[in-house]
Amino acid sequence: MDTVGVESPEKPLQSGDMPTATVLTVSDSCSKGAREDLSGPAVATLLRSHGFAVDGCGVLPDEQAPIEEWLKSACGKAALVVTTGGTGLAPRDVTPEATRNVCDRLVDGISERMRSEGLRQTPFAPLSRALCGTRGTSLILNLPGSPRGAVQSLEVVLPILSHALALLSGAYGQHSEGETGSTLKNKELERP
Amino acid sequence: MDTVGVESPEKPLQSGDMPTATVLTVSDSCSKGAREDLSGPAVATLLRSHGFAVDGCGVLPDEQAPIEEWLKSACGKAALVVTTGGTGLAPRDVTPEATRNVCDRLVDGISERMRSEGLRQTPFAPLSRALCGTRGTSLILNLPGSPRGAVQSLEVVLPILSHALALLSGAYGQHSEGETGSTLKNKELERP
Amino acid sequence: MDTVGVESPEKPLQSGDMPTATVLTVSDSCSKGAREDLSGPAVATLLRSHGFAVDGCGVLPDEQAPIEEWLKSACGKAALVVTTGGTGLAPRDVTPEATRNVCDRLVDGISERMRSEGLRQTPFAPLSRALCGTRGTSLILNLPGSPRGAVQSLEVVLPILSHALALLSGAYGQHSEGETGSTLKNKELERP
Repeated sequence: MDTVGVESPEKPLQSGDMPTATVLTVSDSCSKGAREDLSGPAVATLLRSHGFAVDGCGVLPDEQAPIEEWLKSACGKAALVVTTGGTGLAPRDVTPEATRNVCDRLVDGISERMRSEGLRQTPFAPLSRALCGTRGTSLILNLPGSPRGAVQSLEVVLPILSHALALLSGAYGQHSEGETGSTLKNKELERP
Repeated sequence: MDTVGVESPEKPLQSGDMPTATVLTVSDSCSKGAREDLSGPAVATLLRSHGFAVDGCGVLPDEQAPIEEWLKSACGKAALVVTTGGTGLAPRDVTPEATRNVCDRLVDGISERMRSEGLRQTPFAPLSRALCGTRGTSLILNLPGSPRGAVQSLEVVLPILSHALALLSGAYGQHSEGETGSTLKNKELERP
Repeated sequence: MDTVGVESPEKPLQSGDMPTATVLTVSDSCSKGAREDLSGPAVATLLRSHGFAVDGCGVLPDEQAPIEEWLKSACGKAALVVTTGGTGLAPRDVTPEATRNVCDRLVDGISERMRSEGLRQTPFAPLSRALCGTRGTSLILNLPGSPRGAVQSLEVVLPILSHALALLSGAYGQHSEGETGSTLKNKELERP
């Protein structure tokens, strides 16, 4: 097994009505213990402050196959699966490639939004290759590797993540038999 | 045949010099008649008011294979093939996946533009996964499912659609033998 | 061999500490000599004025396979491989498709940035399908075909290209054994 420092969640991540989330730090040096992982805990703290139950977090080196395995395992256990790291242009940065491989559907608008807002912080924001996509009823969100970049990017999309997760879970029942005027109104609000 | 409520155009959509268009509404409830399709007609009306000859419109449930078949049949009959619905994060939303599968080439800038302008209307605009692409000499454009979202998104890109269709038809003759200074000027205007 | 007017570089493009670049003009008419190639030289001049050593430039028709072959050969010889032309919606425009086929990883943010800034120059900027991606340690950047469009698009991303190439070369050593505080600081600056 190539995974390093992965806390494997045996039971589904459930915590009453709170949406569940998990965080994967992708970093060669953090996975070897040569550097302290500051980004993963910073992301987890921000998620908890926004009402997420965060559990089962892990750390992996920049290796595509183990990242894909981890993501596949995390989806289905957590509604929101966040990664930090491996999204740049360094030779071993492959988190977006792993993410694309395990996603059923991509949500390009989320990554676009993180980059366009990121330009307010740094001219290098366009170099983030972070993706967002869905696998089953889970949403996978890539964030940059630096603590500040990860937190700032997450803050940009947090206001719409709850709505995205509700849509993904089928909570709006758009396709159920009993669609009514109020559902139509919901659809109008949803817009996409 | 899985298609529901599809008006199959037997003859090519041609109407003199008017560009031809067709509209597919993708919605489980509309295809069952459980809800009235307001989006498809709203889109068709807007297209007609901008000089398009609209014909052969259809309604399908959120099923990828039938959507792909419909799109393939529509391309070649209409210069512009517009869809409304199935572009969000609900579990059955697969219109972009069907679109990607039948397109030769994607036009990412069109979808980016609809989303970035959509932010003026709703913070949820990034959740639209609508695509735009070409198949042969036809352009396929995904729009959101709500009547308002579909119309607003289409309004954003209508000013450049005629130019896109002219390029796609080869009207500028960029690659013909007799390229001249005036063609070069056209290319300058086209820019992409 | 389908390549036309390609100057094949036998030795690696190296020029001391200067980053190396090469330019491919994709145009049916230029490759036949029916029109003078103004875009390739304009791009090369701009790159040289920004400290790049430019060599091995070529001209090809809008044919996907020869473009792919040229790009594969150029990567590894030049750090930056720029194309101009074939990014629009004309029937034979296939430069982005060739680029996608030879890239290991895409950098969507670069193309997004060229398009969003391009809107200041022309409402047709969203019709550019230009891509950016990496193959090995080289960066491939598509630009539009008109001299003005190519130069303006390149000017938008030049300020971050050097940083992108440094990351791609592994110069920051993010994944080496001896990562230190100063490397962490570099990562913070890099952000993606």
